[in-house]
Amino acid sequence: MEQVNQIILSKAGSNVELIPEIATHLISSGGKRLRPMLTLAMADMFGYRGEGHVTLAASVEFMHTATLLHDDVVDESDMRRGKLAARKLWGNQASVLVGDYLLGQAFKMMVDVGSLEALRILSEASAIIAEGEVLQLGAAQDITTTEEDYLRVIEAKTAALFAAAAEVGPVIADQSAEMKAAARDYGMQLGLAFQLVDDALDYGGSAADLGKDVGDDFREGKITLPIVLAVARGTDEERSFWKRCLEDGDIQDGDLDRAIDLLKSHGAIAETVERAKAYGAGALAALEGLPDGPHKGALADAVAFCVARVS
Amino acid sequence: MEQVNQIILSKAGSNVELIPEIATHLISSGGKRLRPMLTLAMADMFGYRGEGHVTLAASVEFMHTATLLHDDVVDESDMRRGKLAARKLWGNQASVLVGDYLLGQAFKMMVDVGSLEALRILSEASAIIAEGEVLQLGAAQDITTTEEDYLRVIEAKTAALFAAAAEVGPVIADQSAEMKAAARDYGMQLGLAFQLVDDALDYGGSAADLGKDVGDDFREGKITLPIVLAVARGTDEERSFWKRCLEDGDIQDGDLDRAIDLLKSHGAIAETVERAKAYGAGALAALEGLPDGPHKGALADAVAFCVARVS
Repeated sequence: MEQVNQIILSKAGSNVELIPEIATHLISSGGKRLRPMLTLAMADMFGYRGEGHVTLAASVEFMHTATLLHDDVVDESDMRRGKLAARKLWGNQASVLVGDYLLGQAFKMMVDVGSLEALRILSEASAIIAEGEVLQLGAAQDITTTEEDYLRVIEAKTAALFAAAAEVGPVIADQSAEMKAAARDYGMQLGLAFQLVDDALDYGGSAADLGKDVGDDFREGKITLPIVLAVARGTDEERSFWKRCLEDGDIQDGDLDRAIDLLKSHGAIAETVERAKAYGAGALAALEGLPDGPHKGALADAVAFCVARVS
Repeated sequence: MEQVNQIILSKAGSNVELIPEIATHLISSGGKRLRPMLTLAMADMFGYRGEGHVTLAASVEFMHTATLLHDDVVDESDMRRGKLAARKLWGNQASVLVGDYLLGQAFKMMVDVGSLEALRILSEASAIIAEGEVLQLGAAQDITTTEEDYLRVIEAKTAALFAAAAEVGPVIADQSAEMKAAARDYGMQLGLAFQLVDDALDYGGSAADLGKDVGDDFREGKITLPIVLAVARGTDEERSFWKRCLEDGDIQDGDLDRAIDLLKSHGAIAETVERAKAYGAGALAALEGLPDGPHKGALADAVAFCVARVS
């Protein structure tokens, strides 16, 4: 992982000063490096010998960083990883463009590795992530969003990159289709668990856990699973409350507290956490078919880490 | 080119309705398809037999379209190709995300073609374009921008994609390094000529030629070659005028007319056009080393077309 960090910092460089300034602001701000870890552990698990997995892992992190820069612009977020969001420091314009730069660098790095199959998987993920974000934009501020709609969004915007990051491990280690599918399945289920936990934390965590403020999703009118469940189980009066806050964006003092009370009284946060645990269990099940050893332990720990954030 | 258009329209599709809606708004709005034409003509010139050049040409146009969507957000533009800019119709958020989607699709299409060398050239261009845009952001509203700074910006933000689009032609036709270099040189010089003409037209064309309003660059404080030349040749009083309009953004009635008068009196527009013609001549010279035939004629016509827009 030290090598991944070195590549990340060197490839975030540019003669155009603003680029490394913005990129390292975000990259050095203590991200969990969960996605590149998946690529490294999956490749190592199959005994891969080479440098390609390090470069692919760094390109996965660049794709993720580019997404964060663009997301913060789209969501008008103020905070990211406990710091001011890049867009608050350097503006939306620079955030859009530096995100584009990092995406270009990510593809250059993948080309350096030379695996067309890894390129196919990661470029596919890149298009799907953007598709998921557009889908989320359409679902935002719409309390008729269904559970199915929500799952489609998070599978695309979050889980697809986890799945791709995991799958390229066996791909560069030249493994069977079965191993690739198991790695992908693990990544997909872990990604779903991760996002569900994130969505639960937005109403139940602390600012320190989140790196952003509790209730950000609420203020942005984002329709996550806790909301979908609470709306479905709520009274007409409660639906009016959700509509006013999330669709009309008319949020008053005390509304976030009321929202959290409603989510809790309908068991919506607890059920979201239960779903996350179920996907976590699915990820562990997918691991069973993969080779034993220390990397398998690390990948199982990643599942526990994701779920433990809310336990 | 008909095949390119078909691929473009099919690959702009998505189950997420907003994506084809926005993508085809821009793609169908009469772009010149200059860049994909370079890829096709260059590949055909070398007798390439296959479908890869069509897919690469479409991916080049997608990269360009993604750039336009993001540029309009960054520049806060209202018009593009004579229509309302996508961001005015669907918002900045959707424009950023659909741009990301098209970029992802572009890379997927390149992977389909399977040439790692073409992938390297185009992913490199993708990072360089973004670098150029960031550079331009830094130079905006700064009347001390030099000619050298300006050339560095347009080489990156515009000419790099023309160069890459041309170079991938001989690349998939499996030609010598010499042929690839000549194609790249042609594209680079054509791109510089194209951008210089665009920058001259902003002060001297008609809205119909431009697809946007005359004086947009002026209102955005964009420092293009006509401005660089006029500032260098101007009096102190004129520098104060440029400073007020371009750096302070304090533009009053009649200021655009005065700007155009100053540009003309210093010969700044005419000299910009002369420079464009010189790059155009450079592009034609680069063509000389390439195989004769109808495609060479088409590529020479492309140069004449670019320069003729201001003649």
